[in-house]
Amino acid sequence: MSRIITFLGDGSRERTTLAIATAKWFARQGKRVLLATYINPSTELLLETSLSTHPQSVESHLQVVQLQTTVLLEQAWDEVKKLVSTYLPDSFSEQIYPAELIILPGFDSFLTFNALRQYYQSGSYDVIIYSDRENLEILRMLGIPSALDWYFRRFHQIFADLDISEIANSIGGPLAAAILHANIDRQKMQEGLAQIQHWIEQGVAVVNDAGQLTAYLVTNDTPEAIADTRWCWGSAQQINLTVSGVLAYQDRDLSREAIQSAFTPLAVHHISTLQERNWEAIIQELPDFNATISVTPPLKIDLVQRQVHVFLPGFHKKQVKLTQSGAEIVIEAGDQRRQIVLPPELKGKSVQSGKFEEPYLVISF
Amino acid sequence: MSRIITFLGDGSRERTTLAIATAKWFARQGKRVLLATYINPSTELLLETSLSTHPQSVESHLQVVQLQTTVLLEQAWDEVKKLVSTYLPDSFSEQIYPAELIILPGFDSFLTFNALRQYYQSGSYDVIIYSDRENLEILRMLGIPSALDWYFRRFHQIFADLDISEIANSIGGPLAAAILHANIDRQKMQEGLAQIQHWIEQGVAVVNDAGQLTAYLVTNDTPEAIADTRWCWGSAQQINLTVSGVLAYQDRDLSREAIQSAFTPLAVHHISTLQERNWEAIIQELPDFNATISVTPPLKIDLVQRQVHVFLPGFHKKQVKLTQSGAEIVIEAGDQRRQIVLPPELKGKSVQSGKFEEPYLVISF
Repeated sequence: MSRIITFLGDGSRERTTLAIATAKWFARQGKRVLLATYINPSTELLLETSLSTHPQSVESHLQVVQLQTTVLLEQAWDEVKKLVSTYLPDSFSEQIYPAELIILPGFDSFLTFNALRQYYQSGSYDVIIYSDRENLEILRMLGIPSALDWYFRRFHQIFADLDISEIANSIGGPLAAAILHANIDRQKMQEGLAQIQHWIEQGVAVVNDAGQLTAYLVTNDTPEAIADTRWCWGSAQQINLTVSGVLAYQDRDLSREAIQSAFTPLAVHHISTLQERNWEAIIQELPDFNATISVTPPLKIDLVQRQVHVFLPGFHKKQVKLTQSGAEIVIEAGDQRRQIVLPPELKGKSVQSGKFEEPYLVISF
Repeated sequence: MSRIITFLGDGSRERTTLAIATAKWFARQGKRVLLATYINPSTELLLETSLSTHPQSVESHLQVVQLQTTVLLEQAWDEVKKLVSTYLPDSFSEQIYPAELIILPGFDSFLTFNALRQYYQSGSYDVIIYSDRENLEILRMLGIPSALDWYFRRFHQIFADLDISEIANSIGGPLAAAILHANIDRQKMQEGLAQIQHWIEQGVAVVNDAGQLTAYLVTNDTPEAIADTRWCWGSAQQINLTVSGVLAYQDRDLSREAIQSAFTPLAVHHISTLQERNWEAIIQELPDFNATISVTPPLKIDLVQRQVHVFLPGFHKKQVKLTQSGAEIVIEAGDQRRQIVLPPELKGKSVQSGKFEEPYLVISF
């Protein structure tokens, strides 16, 4: 089974540098490694080679690919066309050239998700090291499966509850009469959705399994970097992403003890700044990525006390919001929302209190 | 008229620090300033105050707001509901609580765009300083008006060309017959679209006008930072965003001359690292943001030579791609696509050659 490792925290170049070092670490063990990164000039300077949008070998066992949205869009076009053709005639999609489509916000994440999914399922790599521009972008991207899973479940119910005559009245005009007399070809729509739902389920399983996907935090020793990196640690919990350790650049402010205490119970590994492309020094300082690490679970459920303990490090009280609407319990933190799925014993019960004392939000039923 | 200033380039904390300093620079001139930034702990540490998702005064003439997507979504909900109600009955949107919606990729950019539009049009601020997480995120967000403008024009034509019976055949089943006998209520759809199209036109006008929106580049003196920041300079051209100067942190590698030569003809202003919240030192080093600056236009059209000169600094030859499909000319660079709008004299003419010699792509017709 392949595994994916990504990096969250302070400084995009620092994260990319450690992604490269980690890729080299695995390659030296004879693992088949893919480093999937975004297109920017400095990564080519760091690797001292020019990169491409197709995986290419940069050293023994190590391939690198630049995920470029414009290229991924053309690669995914045949699948998009197939989906569109369920609803619109072929002449529609034949008039659109994938090479002309302007990139809108959101395309990057969905196409990156799709590309990683394909590399992961290809069986060609033992380890995929994924490094992207920005923390929230990485979290939104890895959160796609669970977000879509929620939308499917939620809107399926709403659409099922809708009275078709209400839709017809709302649209009005002659189309109303037509809709009232139509039987939508549900079979054809279901088939199109089934494939997507299958991908979503697989995606949720990968993100939830620390054996398949883990993140490491990257920080330096300034109070600002530590605060932002701790925020990333909490934000990762919001998508059930396991954080396995901290890589800390240390050359300025705080002591090792201060950094360790900010990230306990995670192990902090101290990393030197890359000097003149001397990767050996950094590779030596990396943790053993093959070791089994016990981490704090994002949720602990205590059926006796009727309590849920939600692990949310890095946030202040005012940055965590708990709401219950109907049967849904939502936690807002890190500019993310997350639905809490409750065990049957607590399902449908009212929240009595929600108390946040870092790092735990304790919800009592 | 308000103006908006944003920052592109190396290091998100460095960009945020200079956004704060610039906001203070304008506030000291008695301008009404809004600093619009994203939610993260380090900005609060830098400003030594806690921030909120509503504008709040942090010093005389200076308000700060944290753009938080989960909150913006609730604020924009009434408008979204109005749009949805054109197509679906009220009972549909009444069953959805804005507080429960999981954030998908793309939401951040569209909601940030909407929030900035509202602050800009409110008339409450002379200057809006906008700082966001990541460069491409800022560019995709500011590129929304021109991207949507293109989609509207392009798909309007395709839908107009579609034979309704083809759509019916493609969907098949009893719905086909219904569609064939329906007259879609175009009036109602047009009204919903007209408001959005008006916003798009206003947005395109703001982005294209250096009097209303400009960007400054932020870099340090390492070769990696300079390469990535030059890439941002070229990427800004792809959305017609004017870049007015460079702010360079200098404490490590390269000489002032080397940095200046990398960014000519832009003026490079040297900035010291923030020490113990001594903002005065940095404010002194900032350029005069009120001075009129002549910048290289993104496009120069030479009707005599039948040539278009496209200014694209920061890219290598292999990173720039020119395609012509039908009447559309597309330039791909910086993981962005951009449609070139030609003057009537060149419209519909075939491209004879496209030659890239940094910083110009010369297209001959």
